Amino acid sequence: MIAAMAISLERGADGGQPVYQQIAAHFRAEIEAGRLGAGDRLPTIRELARTTGVNRDTVALAYDELTRAGLIEATVGRGTFVRTPVRTSPPPSFEPVLSPLVERILDGERSRVRYAAPAGTVPLHSLVPDPSLYPVDEFRRAVNRVLAESGGDLLRYGTPQGDPALREELAARLSEAGMAVAADGLVLTQGASEGIALALRLFTVPGDVVAVEEPTYHNVLGALAALGLRGSPVPMRDGEPDLVALERTLERSEVKLFYTMPTFHNPLGTSTGLAHRRALLAIAAKAGKPVIEDAYEMDLRYAGKPVPSLAALDERGVVVQLFSFSKSLFPGARVGSIAARGRALDALVPLKHATDLGGSPVLQSALARFVASGGYDRHLTKVRRALLARRDVLLETLAAEMPDGVTWTTPEGGLQLWVELPGEIDTAELLSDAVRGGVLFAPGFQFRLDRRPSSGMRLSIALADEAQIRRGVTALAGVVRDRLRAGPMRGVEEGVTV
Amino acid sequence: MIAAMAISLERGADGGQPVYQQIAAHFRAEIEAGRLGAGDRLPTIRELARTTGVNRDTVALAYDELTRAGLIEATVGRGTFVRTPVRTSPPPSFEPVLSPLVERILDGERSRVRYAAPAGTVPLHSLVPDPSLYPVDEFRRAVNRVLAESGGDLLRYGTPQGDPALREELAARLSEAGMAVAADGLVLTQGASEGIALALRLFTVPGDVVAVEEPTYHNVLGALAALGLRGSPVPMRDGEPDLVALERTLERSEVKLFYTMPTFHNPLGTSTGLAHRRALLAIAAKAGKPVIEDAYEMDLRYAGKPVPSLAALDERGVVVQLFSFSKSLFPGARVGSIAARGRALDALVPLKHATDLGGSPVLQSALARFVASGGYDRHLTKVRRALLARRDVLLETLAAEMPDGVTWTTPEGGLQLWVELPGEIDTAELLSDAVRGGVLFAPGFQFRLDRRPSSGMRLSIALADEAQIRRGVTALAGVVRDRLRAGPMRGVEEGVTV
Repeated sequence: MIAAMAISLERGADGGQPVYQQIAAHFRAEIEAGRLGAGDRLPTIRELARTTGVNRDTVALAYDELTRAGLIEATVGRGTFVRTPVRTSPPPSFEPVLSPLVERILDGERSRVRYAAPAGTVPLHSLVPDPSLYPVDEFRRAVNRVLAESGGDLLRYGTPQGDPALREELAARLSEAGMAVAADGLVLTQGASEGIALALRLFTVPGDVVAVEEPTYHNVLGALAALGLRGSPVPMRDGEPDLVALERTLERSEVKLFYTMPTFHNPLGTSTGLAHRRALLAIAAKAGKPVIEDAYEMDLRYAGKPVPSLAALDERGVVVQLFSFSKSLFPGARVGSIAARGRALDALVPLKHATDLGGSPVLQSALARFVASGGYDRHLTKVRRALLARRDVLLETLAAEMPDGVTWTTPEGGLQLWVELPGEIDTAELLSDAVRGGVLFAPGFQFRLDRRPSSGMRLSIALADEAQIRRGVTALAGVVRDRLRAGPMRGVEEGVTV
Repeated sequence: MIAAMAISLERGADGGQPVYQQIAAHFRAEIEAGRLGAGDRLPTIRELARTTGVNRDTVALAYDELTRAGLIEATVGRGTFVRTPVRTSPPPSFEPVLSPLVERILDGERSRVRYAAPAGTVPLHSLVPDPSLYPVDEFRRAVNRVLAESGGDLLRYGTPQGDPALREELAARLSEAGMAVAADGLVLTQGASEGIALALRLFTVPGDVVAVEEPTYHNVLGALAALGLRGSPVPMRDGEPDLVALERTLERSEVKLFYTMPTFHNPLGTSTGLAHRRALLAIAAKAGKPVIEDAYEMDLRYAGKPVPSLAALDERGVVVQLFSFSKSLFPGARVGSIAARGRALDALVPLKHATDLGGSPVLQSALARFVASGGYDRHLTKVRRALLARRDVLLETLAAEMPDGVTWTTPEGGLQLWVELPGEIDTAELLSDAVRGGVLFAPGFQFRLDRRPSSGMRLSIALADEAQIRRGVTALAGVVRDRLRAGPMRGVEEGVTV
């Protein structure tokens, strides 16, 4: 079918639409109105030039425009046709090809531990700080005040580096702890988790290897996978990374950095001493590899003497330090920081910009107000007291209830400790028994790079109060005793294979 | 110097520390107290076994532990020595090796346009929405209310997917605009900017190529660089991407997706029609390549008839759509969304989790409250009215003041339009003249992949009010007239090379 050719053209009108555009507009309107449909043939250039009295080049220009716009297509020897806009129903399904890195994330998702338990189960598995301790009203007033005073400015984009007042407060606190850092040396992040991702991206490309403690924080393993990085384990011995293994690992050229939690290690709850920290820095400097120090629970010391952070001991600029308010205050503000120096710092600011332009000035500014008012320090005093009491109940109950052969760490701060079971028990297998007994824990395998079975478990005092801890640990000890009596059952229960 | 050997050991004490640990603890304490220094020699295993009366294996175990802890090192044939903890001052400086991707970002930073101008300069360069229009008090009340009602919960971690109430509100609005999407099909992001980064990561690995319009949003070019991606330009013709070029580009196997802004294009201000959108979707589906539709100014239509979004027209699941509150409300809440389907959606949630665990539930929940109360719609009515008035003044002043040969686009919404100058003027060179004349604009080169000179510029009505626009455009027209009179001066002024 030949398309209609009644085109009204205005020629020579001063400032009017060029003729070729008028022709294109005519066909465009016909197609959009449905008067021309897919497969309809348009007049040839020659025909249309004749019937409209315009130059062939002008018609060709119009057809060119319609072709580029995807409305028509020319088939050599057959003519010019209205293009099929969408295939007729049903459209074939479309499965986009995902990035191979994303496929790895999806694989990881399938093997993630899902904690499902009836209400009232004692949550010894979770590192979410206890909401009953959050200073909600004080923080709400801080948000209110900063929005009332400078809401217009706080609702614009912030800088990629983050609110200057909060960086000043943080830098002052870090300086008091012995670290040479100014507000300009900090970049605010969405909690330490974004800090981990950004710090890894500073030094790596997909395919690179990152030295991590084993066991280590399981979300770091997720971050590595998402960035196409592989981990190389540095074993933890007596709560400290084995420095001989670290040195050997960092010598490998494909290993780009070391990620470590020297203070209140997750999941172990242990901290390293001064000499170990100095030796670690010397090893990293000798290997020429940076160290990411995750100081996420830095402010939660409730016992023992503070040890200077790696960043405080670092004279060379080896260390990139992560901090977060998520564990010591609350996670919902999503505020953490990265301290870096030199070119690493120069690069961090545009990297953050390229990732999300920057965080929310509202929450950062409210947090600055809250810290400056002393609210954060008052909160820390309260939280540390609560955590110390909870830890003591946890240690007492473990000592009183756990059968012989069970050992555990004794943290001086933070939210977690580590329990090691005897008798080749795979703690992943034990979890369903524990849930039936009314208690949850974090099985050790998820803190390992290769997720091989572990006889360890992480217990947390973040969410459970003293009575719950006593009840939970007593129940857990019963489950462990039962399992030890029954003997090893690896690989048989619930289809778990070892 | 042989190290002191006065070690007091408790043996056989029930539950006491194993002997090897007591030995290790002794040396550790001596080193930390400074009584043993770097280079001091320890007794041989044989000597120490003899003087303390313990088994050689036990001593070896202790030395082993100290070696792993980085405190001592054995040199074959010479003995065991206290390790040098840090080199003596001054420490050699340490320059970490940055990721090659990060080096690219740093290069990009050096060539970024910095706008420096005296106060009072008319800001026709900026897409930051006008703070005088922000509904600050209404939003502050919403934040206040949600924190008072459920602060404890909102200050916990949210889900990676984001606040369910806000996703419900957004899904309802998108559905009204013809898109088949439920709250579960959305993931909340830190503005469209994080959406861009996440959507790119869904389908690419470093080294891949992404088809982008040219000109395109300059921050997308930054996001590509940060992710190690290369862009392949699809030319914009008459405000629409050239579909013939798109088809050819998507056929290349290294090209993984197409990033496009069909509505209120940045920087052009143009929108594509229905037929073009349908044809674009058919081309992408045929090539098997997903399309990222950046609908960041979707809610800012002030003239003309709405055209269904690509996502609304998409029957196959080709499109991943980005939305943001940053331009239509304010950027400071840092809230946007991604709509995806199928495995892309499945992957997006853990990808967001691996990036920063999730956004702030506080701001998301407050925004949900604000939208549900009708506040957002009331705000849109006000903003659209203001933008229409500003656009009209902009168009009138351009028509009245600009010399012959200058052309511009006529947007039906959003914050920007595009001006094209005649006479081979490089608008980057014109910027300093414009600043002297009291007006800023965004030069066209920064929207191009290779940053080659451009005779185009983006003008924005985001920040400037009607009077400022009139003044700014009049000044700009004067600068353009002067430059046209002076003739082309490419590459000579202020050391700019072309």
